Amino acid sequence: MAKRVTGPEIEKLIQLLAKVPGLGPRSARRAALHLIKKKDQLLGPLSLAMGEAYDKVKICSRCGNVDTSDPCTVCTDIRRDHSMLIICEDVSDLWALERAGAMNAAYHVLGGTLSPLDGVGPDDLNIRALVDRVSEGTVKEIIIAVNATVEGQTTAHYITDQLSDFNVKITRLAHGVPVGGELDYLDEGTLTAALRARTAI
Amino acid sequence: MAKRVTGPEIEKLIQLLAKVPGLGPRSARRAALHLIKKKDQLLGPLSLAMGEAYDKVKICSRCGNVDTSDPCTVCTDIRRDHSMLIICEDVSDLWALERAGAMNAAYHVLGGTLSPLDGVGPDDLNIRALVDRVSEGTVKEIIIAVNATVEGQTTAHYITDQLSDFNVKITRLAHGVPVGGELDYLDEGTLTAALRARTAI
Repeated sequence: MAKRVTGPEIEKLIQLLAKVPGLGPRSARRAALHLIKKKDQLLGPLSLAMGEAYDKVKICSRCGNVDTSDPCTVCTDIRRDHSMLIICEDVSDLWALERAGAMNAAYHVLGGTLSPLDGVGPDDLNIRALVDRVSEGTVKEIIIAVNATVEGQTTAHYITDQLSDFNVKITRLAHGVPVGGELDYLDEGTLTAALRARTAI
Repeated sequence: MAKRVTGPEIEKLIQLLAKVPGLGPRSARRAALHLIKKKDQLLGPLSLAMGEAYDKVKICSRCGNVDTSDPCTVCTDIRRDHSMLIICEDVSDLWALERAGAMNAAYHVLGGTLSPLDGVGPDDLNIRALVDRVSEGTVKEIIIAVNATVEGQTTAHYITDQLSDFNVKITRLAHGVPVGGELDYLDEGTLTAALRARTAI
């Protein structure tokens, strides 16, 4: 914008909103105006909620989840089956798996994948804590739910290797056709995997 | 989400973020995680910026712009030509017109359009202040830059009528083919307007 049309505080708000994923420079402007119009219903409460999250948010020292308590809501949930542990790359994956609601398990968030090119080694991930956790003896099955990428699979192999001394069953997510997906749009690798892992009707 | 996976403060933050235009429930979750990961670079500063905007934001009593000062940055800008007044529906239109940077004029924000069906009459819009402003005698030209909708055009006619006693030139935005637009995708009304208002090359 060539000339200033509003105060520096509002420009600052727009600049920061533009850094939120899902918003760009243009939608940040729209969002800022909407927030200002809904000052008491949205801008005020959101400012407070952000401040509170800023003050209270913690990374769970046990599983790596994001929460305001440590250990987190998942780790302290006694209704869960803590003998089953789902390993995922990121907190967003944990939340996505929980939305599916298929399992009543505990989780362990790695915080990334092994990636030698980016300088990410085993010590940069939450793997040592995982080994310690498994060595406690409670965990009976580990489901490795990392992304189906090269880095994800490398990480899965490394973890399997690290846990080979423990008496735990290690599984991974099935590969196949996404539910609702059309075969025409799928890559050859997925189709091959789906054919090989075909199941009886 | 069936079971809680994180603290109530973070759930609250996600709920509020989902109300920001441009973000939905899913992208609000992603945005919240991103904010938390960038706690010191983004979450903290954004919380403060929102708090500051909440405390300081004002509607300019002269033109209806959103700012932290009253009169606003535009109204107090002595480098602008205050004899030319652009009338628009919303603050977002003012900001959009300023991004174009074509004019160095002052503005007047109506805060909506006349819409009898929604119960919006002349007294609900910033029209009386406009008439007062024009009666000061400084304004020589008024550009009515309302949306090309039925409500916008009705409002434009009403304003023209209200200002008929003053010695000001009243103009409206040109109708025509959007720059970069393809004729094939344009409606008949726009094409007719563009043909009628054709200009010599």
